[in-house]
Amino acid sequence: MQTERLLMIPGPSPVHPRILNSLSLPTVSHVSPELVEELKKALDNLKKVVFCEKGEAFIISGAGTLAMEMAILNVIKKGEKFLVISQGFFGQRMVQIAESFGLDCDLIEREWGKAVLPEELEAKLDKEEYEAVVSTHVDTCTGACAPIKDYAEVLKGRGVHFIVDGVCATGGIEERMDDWGIDVILTAPQKCFGAPPGLAVLVVSEKAIEKRRSMGAIPAYYADLLNWLPIMKDPSKYFSTPCVNEIRAFYESTQIVLEEGMEKRILRHARVAKAIRKALIELGFSLFTQEPFLADTLSVVEYPEGIKDQPFRKTFSKNGVVVAGGLGETAGKVFRMGHMGNLSVSQVYFALDTLERTLTSIGFSFIPGSGLKAAKEILGE
Amino acid sequence: MQTERLLMIPGPSPVHPRILNSLSLPTVSHVSPELVEELKKALDNLKKVVFCEKGEAFIISGAGTLAMEMAILNVIKKGEKFLVISQGFFGQRMVQIAESFGLDCDLIEREWGKAVLPEELEAKLDKEEYEAVVSTHVDTCTGACAPIKDYAEVLKGRGVHFIVDGVCATGGIEERMDDWGIDVILTAPQKCFGAPPGLAVLVVSEKAIEKRRSMGAIPAYYADLLNWLPIMKDPSKYFSTPCVNEIRAFYESTQIVLEEGMEKRILRHARVAKAIRKALIELGFSLFTQEPFLADTLSVVEYPEGIKDQPFRKTFSKNGVVVAGGLGETAGKVFRMGHMGNLSVSQVYFALDTLERTLTSIGFSFIPGSGLKAAKEILGE
Repeated sequence: MQTERLLMIPGPSPVHPRILNSLSLPTVSHVSPELVEELKKALDNLKKVVFCEKGEAFIISGAGTLAMEMAILNVIKKGEKFLVISQGFFGQRMVQIAESFGLDCDLIEREWGKAVLPEELEAKLDKEEYEAVVSTHVDTCTGACAPIKDYAEVLKGRGVHFIVDGVCATGGIEERMDDWGIDVILTAPQKCFGAPPGLAVLVVSEKAIEKRRSMGAIPAYYADLLNWLPIMKDPSKYFSTPCVNEIRAFYESTQIVLEEGMEKRILRHARVAKAIRKALIELGFSLFTQEPFLADTLSVVEYPEGIKDQPFRKTFSKNGVVVAGGLGETAGKVFRMGHMGNLSVSQVYFALDTLERTLTSIGFSFIPGSGLKAAKEILGE
Repeated sequence: MQTERLLMIPGPSPVHPRILNSLSLPTVSHVSPELVEELKKALDNLKKVVFCEKGEAFIISGAGTLAMEMAILNVIKKGEKFLVISQGFFGQRMVQIAESFGLDCDLIEREWGKAVLPEELEAKLDKEEYEAVVSTHVDTCTGACAPIKDYAEVLKGRGVHFIVDGVCATGGIEERMDDWGIDVILTAPQKCFGAPPGLAVLVVSEKAIEKRRSMGAIPAYYADLLNWLPIMKDPSKYFSTPCVNEIRAFYESTQIVLEEGMEKRILRHARVAKAIRKALIELGFSLFTQEPFLADTLSVVEYPEGIKDQPFRKTFSKNGVVVAGGLGETAGKVFRMGHMGNLSVSQVYFALDTLERTLTSIGFSFIPGSGLKAAKEILGE
């Protein structure tokens, strides 16, 4: 029997019982009325989450990495150049994907923990022509949140396709596809939707679909949006057997998102992030990510002197809360705590209480109750 | 509330409660000891299912179609030619995949319902040089099962890579990777494993892995086996977030397969197929697929005069059993009934009993009880 722990890594986030319940319904036919209906609704819901009225949504068996690849391959063809705005690990991955397919891209980035400024983007665009600009919204590794709206402002009128990697943002941080003029938002279920991983999720503007159509053959089959488009328009058609159970779970997750309402959900993510950070600072931690780039979906937290990564995370997990370690240059120096999706206020309090118990047991001194108190000042009793 | 019906389409097959149970365990971290352990064991189990001692197994978020693409892209590079042995719809798909990536392939096929003969393969190979030969084992559309072992015999000593699409066969029909000299078996969970769809599953020989290494850059990122190999060797490493719940469910399905034992499982599939067919013929149906190409995993069944496809399948489903219609040239003329995975004898009897009730209610005349009796003669009480 597995011990249940609160999952506060930066994805998968905790999966709500309603979603687990949908996941575990007896597998139905991929062309059954149940699945056709729920996939249709999930696609509609998804568009609402990113404030998209036109455009096409795609829900495909796979992962965020596949969605990244799909976004690039369906909008940028060989000979065209694009720009990657990197906030860390996943921006680098976009470059790797480009290299795999022999696509030409430039990269702008800042040191880890900060995001590229809109004026840096503007300066780059004034110097060079790009077919598309790709930006990670929130980098799960560095905790940096990019000013996507400001980038979009810079891009206006330049005829550039704007692709946003919303894996750690969509459904928790504001992304207004139509208003801001985003062409592709790609994401995954296991972050702000709080559903199990296993899907590549995209919303694609009409302009980007048109671009795809104009491209002719692309080096993709499973990743070709045009192979999936007829199925997304009519899920009773067949291209490749959809992952029935995952899709039903994801549908339920989009229902939960819209029941809360996107505006409220965005505000809740911001408040929870603020509360957790205030608590962490009270307890003696500091933040790796710099203001004003702090993502509302996770915190990358630097250890104060006296706390060692491995024993801390091991004890924290044994006590009931799982957080992630740092990656690359931050390994051993930080832990990463996700606070996104359907995480409830009581789960936040449980996490902070468990954190205090953990600090006590590893002999770190702090003012007892100060973390929880700080959080409660923001979130209430 | 969804009405539970027995799923006898040619995949997804019925998902055993043990597998649904594993699917619905609270989502754990993708690097948790639970997942690392179960993914490792699932990979080991998978190799046992195809009698592979060396070689590498891959379990990746995706679908059978992605696995087809992966098999081709990781073994065949531009400028090399390969041969597709088509048993129907999914052989054609291999050709489409080749075209998408500008790969050169020839096709041999026979009319739907028959499989290509080993001597036809031999004649083709004597005339032309190929880097690889790709064959569907069982075509879900035509119900034709290819003589894979005989093909392998023909291929011996020719230095050709042999790729088998086992989507509707692996785990239910014999596939001996090492003994027969197969280089890639690709498959999916929702057929003979009886797990929910959502994975691309492959077992790849050392020779094929070496081939991949020798190829350098290939037009793939998510589909590049070399990006996944380190994770399959050590699932605590990260490439792309694995679909935790699906993998745990698939692990459980491989446990069930090996608890039964592959030899027994193969025999059971053969007996169940024989029983169902005998029953169908007793009731007045005939088989679309020709001897000796009948697959043990599904039957493609021709309607006798007096039974119309749509009303028949609708009533059958309302009575509790879901079967699939024909595709392409067989649409309206046949129904397709899956009998694979963890389908129990009592489920077979339920299906046949329900079929008789359905025939009665649509006014088709037959000898009452004759179907069930025929099946029981083979399967016992």
